[in-house]
Amino acid sequence: MYSKVRMGMIGGGQGAFIGAVHRMAGALDGRIELVCASFSQNYENTKITGACESISEKRLYVSWQEMLDRELDLPEYERMEFISIVTPNHLHMPIAKAAAEKGFHIICDKPAGMSYDEVAGLAPILTSSGSIFALTHTYLGYPMVWQARHLLEKGTIGKLKKIYVEYPQGWLAQELEASGNKQAGWRNDPAKAGLAGAMGDIGTHAHSLVEFISAQSMIRVSAHLRSHFKSRQLDDDGVILFEMDDEVTGVLTASQICAGEENSLKIRLYGSKGGLEWSQMEPNSLKVRQSGQPMQIFRAGLDQSLCTAALERTRLPSGHPEGYLEAFANLYRQFAAAVRNNESLQARGVPGLVEALSGMAFLEAVVASNAQNNMWVEINNNVPAQFQRLAS
Amino acid sequence: MYSKVRMGMIGGGQGAFIGAVHRMAGALDGRIELVCASFSQNYENTKITGACESISEKRLYVSWQEMLDRELDLPEYERMEFISIVTPNHLHMPIAKAAAEKGFHIICDKPAGMSYDEVAGLAPILTSSGSIFALTHTYLGYPMVWQARHLLEKGTIGKLKKIYVEYPQGWLAQELEASGNKQAGWRNDPAKAGLAGAMGDIGTHAHSLVEFISAQSMIRVSAHLRSHFKSRQLDDDGVILFEMDDEVTGVLTASQICAGEENSLKIRLYGSKGGLEWSQMEPNSLKVRQSGQPMQIFRAGLDQSLCTAALERTRLPSGHPEGYLEAFANLYRQFAAAVRNNESLQARGVPGLVEALSGMAFLEAVVASNAQNNMWVEINNNVPAQFQRLAS
Amino acid sequence: MYSKVRMGMIGGGQGAFIGAVHRMAGALDGRIELVCASFSQNYENTKITGACESISEKRLYVSWQEMLDRELDLPEYERMEFISIVTPNHLHMPIAKAAAEKGFHIICDKPAGMSYDEVAGLAPILTSSGSIFALTHTYLGYPMVWQARHLLEKGTIGKLKKIYVEYPQGWLAQELEASGNKQAGWRNDPAKAGLAGAMGDIGTHAHSLVEFISAQSMIRVSAHLRSHFKSRQLDDDGVILFEMDDEVTGVLTASQICAGEENSLKIRLYGSKGGLEWSQMEPNSLKVRQSGQPMQIFRAGLDQSLCTAALERTRLPSGHPEGYLEAFANLYRQFAAAVRNNESLQARGVPGLVEALSGMAFLEAVVASNAQNNMWVEINNNVPAQFQRLAS
Amino acid sequence: MYSKVRMGMIGGGQGAFIGAVHRMAGALDGRIELVCASFSQNYENTKITGACESISEKRLYVSWQEMLDRELDLPEYERMEFISIVTPNHLHMPIAKAAAEKGFHIICDKPAGMSYDEVAGLAPILTSSGSIFALTHTYLGYPMVWQARHLLEKGTIGKLKKIYVEYPQGWLAQELEASGNKQAGWRNDPAKAGLAGAMGDIGTHAHSLVEFISAQSMIRVSAHLRSHFKSRQLDDDGVILFEMDDEVTGVLTASQICAGEENSLKIRLYGSKGGLEWSQMEPNSLKVRQSGQPMQIFRAGLDQSLCTAALERTRLPSGHPEGYLEAFANLYRQFAAAVRNNESLQARGVPGLVEALSGMAFLEAVVASNAQNNMWVEINNNVPAQFQRLAS
Repeated sequence: MYSKVRMGMIGGGQGAFIGAVHRMAGALDGRIELVCASFSQNYENTKITGACESISEKRLYVSWQEMLDRELDLPEYERMEFISIVTPNHLHMPIAKAAAEKGFHIICDKPAGMSYDEVAGLAPILTSSGSIFALTHTYLGYPMVWQARHLLEKGTIGKLKKIYVEYPQGWLAQELEASGNKQAGWRNDPAKAGLAGAMGDIGTHAHSLVEFISAQSMIRVSAHLRSHFKSRQLDDDGVILFEMDDEVTGVLTASQICAGEENSLKIRLYGSKGGLEWSQMEPNSLKVRQSGQPMQIFRAGLDQSLCTAALERTRLPSGHPEGYLEAFANLYRQFAAAVRNNESLQARGVPGLVEALSGMAFLEAVVASNAQNNMWVEINNNVPAQFQRLAS
Repeated sequence: MYSKVRMGMIGGGQGAFIGAVHRMAGALDGRIELVCASFSQNYENTKITGACESISEKRLYVSWQEMLDRELDLPEYERMEFISIVTPNHLHMPIAKAAAEKGFHIICDKPAGMSYDEVAGLAPILTSSGSIFALTHTYLGYPMVWQARHLLEKGTIGKLKKIYVEYPQGWLAQELEASGNKQAGWRNDPAKAGLAGAMGDIGTHAHSLVEFISAQSMIRVSAHLRSHFKSRQLDDDGVILFEMDDEVTGVLTASQICAGEENSLKIRLYGSKGGLEWSQMEPNSLKVRQSGQPMQIFRAGLDQSLCTAALERTRLPSGHPEGYLEAFANLYRQFAAAVRNNESLQARGVPGLVEALSGMAFLEAVVASNAQNNMWVEINNNVPAQFQRLAS
Repeated sequence: MYSKVRMGMIGGGQGAFIGAVHRMAGALDGRIELVCASFSQNYENTKITGACESISEKRLYVSWQEMLDRELDLPEYERMEFISIVTPNHLHMPIAKAAAEKGFHIICDKPAGMSYDEVAGLAPILTSSGSIFALTHTYLGYPMVWQARHLLEKGTIGKLKKIYVEYPQGWLAQELEASGNKQAGWRNDPAKAGLAGAMGDIGTHAHSLVEFISAQSMIRVSAHLRSHFKSRQLDDDGVILFEMDDEVTGVLTASQICAGEENSLKIRLYGSKGGLEWSQMEPNSLKVRQSGQPMQIFRAGLDQSLCTAALERTRLPSGHPEGYLEAFANLYRQFAAAVRNNESLQARGVPGLVEALSGMAFLEAVVASNAQNNMWVEINNNVPAQFQRLAS
Repeated sequence: MYSKVRMGMIGGGQGAFIGAVHRMAGALDGRIELVCASFSQNYENTKITGACESISEKRLYVSWQEMLDRELDLPEYERMEFISIVTPNHLHMPIAKAAAEKGFHIICDKPAGMSYDEVAGLAPILTSSGSIFALTHTYLGYPMVWQARHLLEKGTIGKLKKIYVEYPQGWLAQELEASGNKQAGWRNDPAKAGLAGAMGDIGTHAHSLVEFISAQSMIRVSAHLRSHFKSRQLDDDGVILFEMDDEVTGVLTASQICAGEENSLKIRLYGSKGGLEWSQMEPNSLKVRQSGQPMQIFRAGLDQSLCTAALERTRLPSGHPEGYLEAFANLYRQFAAAVRNNESLQARGVPGLVEALSGMAFLEAVVASNAQNNMWVEINNNVPAQFQRLAS
């Protein structure tokens, strides 16, 4: 009998959004069991959340430090195998490093940390402990994102020339942080959110999508960031012009003040012969335009026309819509398989340390460019030699 | 600590489609644990499937009869609380009746059985044992279906006049059953599928959607069924004209020979002042047209504009697409809550015996009408007095 | 120098809808000149309308009889070459017959007349005079309708099996005729509208679209008509089941009480290998589904992928939307070319007497079926030998 | 009797695209008559085109100079009242100035000329002659563009903050000019096209749409232009960051190398309370999002919900699609009314000299910014005092 992979969670108590998402993503395929947690700095919250999740009270911990220590004391067959980090950003790396030092595997929300250097400091620990570190760039869990990458790779649209990626949201069009909204609050606090606001929160998703589908790195950016309220310390809106290897240019917009917009991440890539378009809000379709030919719409689930990687990320026949939680669950399922089978994340198609570093380097270049009148700034694409990029 | 609700599964071994869907639907919210199963008449299949699902081998049973017997011998805190029936149709009622007699609760795939009378025979057993019987009309788990019902009820489109519901699929456009396709095979065997083919398989979904959103019963039908291959014993395509109380008429089409179609269930309802439109393949949107006004699109997750029942069936902020598995999981979550808290299914918004009987009565009227040159046939809307209709 | 083809108009004075449409359709391509008219039984209306249209007052006639007589007296190079009939239905045939007897060509709104026999009576007159009679089934002027027919003919979706055509409108959801609406008024008067209401007004468009794209005739129908107001004498809503040659069946719905709907004509055709879908409200796209392959969307204007007939009905590069007036103008342009060059309508792709008779035969069968409890009624597909069907 | 407004055309012989568009736009409403032309420098082309257009041969002129001279010799009731200029860009102003000096009115394709100063030189001539000068920014002829402006003005989306406008085309993804394509050829020749390529050809449309809907002026830009082929002298792709009065910022992308794209102009405007979205390829819909409310889709033709200006630009009931030619015809119809009634263009809602100057100033700032490492450059918003902006 296969035993479920045992997960612990840090952060994500009641009132948080993303913690519940990670729990559902972990649960969906029946391969992962949530066995322990330190959901909140408020232990009452941890207990209430834990009770709802059917976690034994003795494995609900007062602090993440306690959780790491006490789980290590448990017999191997019982103790958690990996932790899921869903705290505000500033805690990601301290927890990840401590966990890796104790040999636990890690799956972490994005952005990975507060600076490139902070995240780079995780690399030697992972190397010495053998821990796996995964980063939940949700949108890389969607099958049609893999199909897009596959079509680009096989030349369907010719040589890549132009990328547009946009990520409008509307939830910060009002000054929510002023009225005590918890999500808005920490995201507007540089000590907790890090270098950037909207760019860190959603711009990094757009960045990772660009690099993943194109299988190329951004090499420089010219960034224009804005904040639309005096009290708002971090950007809520921005546009990034970028250049990639090989004469590819692009435009990335990310904004949280587009009132009325939901979560409208969309990417378009154009090559010498055609273009690809994918929208997160209609995730099961991939539009493929080729000059002079009818547009094609590839659909998730439609067996014969999809690549293997896309099919592996599909649970249902076409026409039975899958969505955000299924994409998230794809990351968890592949990560859990890597943990259990001691496989590489790259082989499992899950973003990890390289993508974490890329994201931090992107943010640092963006902030630097914005601070210097939008001058072009190179992105630090140095990656520790022992780690592999997902999209290579 | 809340303990998970314990589920057993009958049917759904490897190679089946809907069994895995039920398992994921049960798992998603972390409230249900699959503790035992008899997945297949082939015990090897049961063992392999069970191992993948981390079920203890001693609770993988050779037959459903054995499972019911042996689980009953377990202590109450350990034994399964309900069974999920995902076998071909002809086994639904024998299993459900046996399970109810032993006091287990039941959640069952549709259609409920082979005839109205067969299903009606379950009623007294449920009454005497107190077991809950739920029927997985998946589409009633979608939040925007509840929103549609809510808007109709509050008069947004005036007095209802006309309903169009359509359900085209394409997977039986080829004679798959001739080439050994398992799904197509039993669906074409009257001894396993029952009275009807496409009408039983998908027409009943359309029927339940009509009755649920309108909160009315169909009262008579004129049915036209066809089979497009000589070897195909049951209908693969049909159109049903129907009348409801209160001068409402409608057209229901269901077909599995619409080559190229995926799973394109769509319903439109028109009243004296406007119309509603919902499509399963874009499930998070509900189109509302009112004469002389801009069309409105209600969106799942968008808090302020949705009714309570829709919000209760939503897990994510708008723009984070939810789909078929989430709808299915809504049925499981509400059913599990009814089981654990001894609440009524109706209060929990899950279809049950009344809907099971309605579906069978619909099918019997359809088949009778088709056999008699499409003459209008009354639907048997008798319901045992102790059971309540969901949509009332 | 090419001189414009000279047109006279009967009907279509101020306050009518379709007259202005015919005038714009005639004018768009600069090949037709409106030289005379009898717009209304009210000569003041004729004068006002004529002044707006820059028609010389001496060629604004008190009655259509006067117009036919006096135009005949003019020298050939000056007198009108054809008339456009845009009156209520009951006048179509009397005017057309008188015009044909005098050797004028005719383009006429639909339905053609009040009965099959009435329209059949036009045939010998046309034969003896050599006049051309065209019927403005607007939707056959759309390029993507021709593309659909082309793809079906060349086997893209295999052997045709199933057709769904729907035509919901909402403008008669209220009892407009009771409040003096002119359009609604005559359409509800059997003496002016003819056999049927919605079926005559829009059902015939759906019927012509089915026969044109499929290149087949409907052979029998089972019809269900309704009127939703006591004062409404003719149907405002109906569903027609139909059978065609060669084991093709279909469903046609046409309704004018679908509150909130605009003009949502849509047709879907399914064959053994795939399906076609065209919607009048997105007329520049044609969806093509083939089993197991990505959906294709053919687009008007996109040169390489369209058939010749579709390209001939396109004026602009793709992405520059054309619409209803352009489709209408295609009929006028082709008709005017037939008139000037003495070509057959069939060669020019414009519906004529055969389609007029088909439409009347369809309506008569529909009304007869509805009157006899929806029994199946054969459609009279007799066509005078000297006339050719467009879609053959 | 109203006589049609008499038009002459310069440019637009066979083989050109936009000339035929202007002719159809002029013809559609039956208010304008094309009476003379100099279609081409090649008089054979002029004669052939003129014959097709039923223009008397004696009014087909060898050169535009000859046309202006000889028309002036005709009696006033016969001679053309205005000219339509559809030549390559470099001839716009020389012709317009000569025509204005002779007292003819002018409607001219865009961009208006080769430089701001060149266009500014037209102002005193117009003032002294009283000629009207209109510029065919087609997209300002669409009813839903007027509706967008109306909704913004009345506060539907609150205070404007952010604008995204994009205009991707694909037709220059290949090096068409190298293979003799006439359209691509002159557009790539700075002596004929002017300052810019794609920015002049389509970027100016995007710019005019932004200023018109927002009723504000762009005040500065940071521009990034590219050309994707060595032989291509002018930009084929660019992104412009812009700022407007009152703390509004935006992003404008225009590209002709987005292979597979048709003519996909789209604008989105966000304010403090919601957003507007309009796409040229679905021109009859306007999406309105308001925070926390269902999205609304306003539709052309739907009487009760549209503003007067939108209704005035609509010919058909909703659901009967109108498109590019109808939008173009709206400009011609309003212009012709201004000519005949001696009204101001502004009152008639047609762009004129101010918009022509704005477009040139925009292009000059764009080119200057691009040449100086994308530094922010102010746009020259000086407008001669006697001319009024359309959007004020």
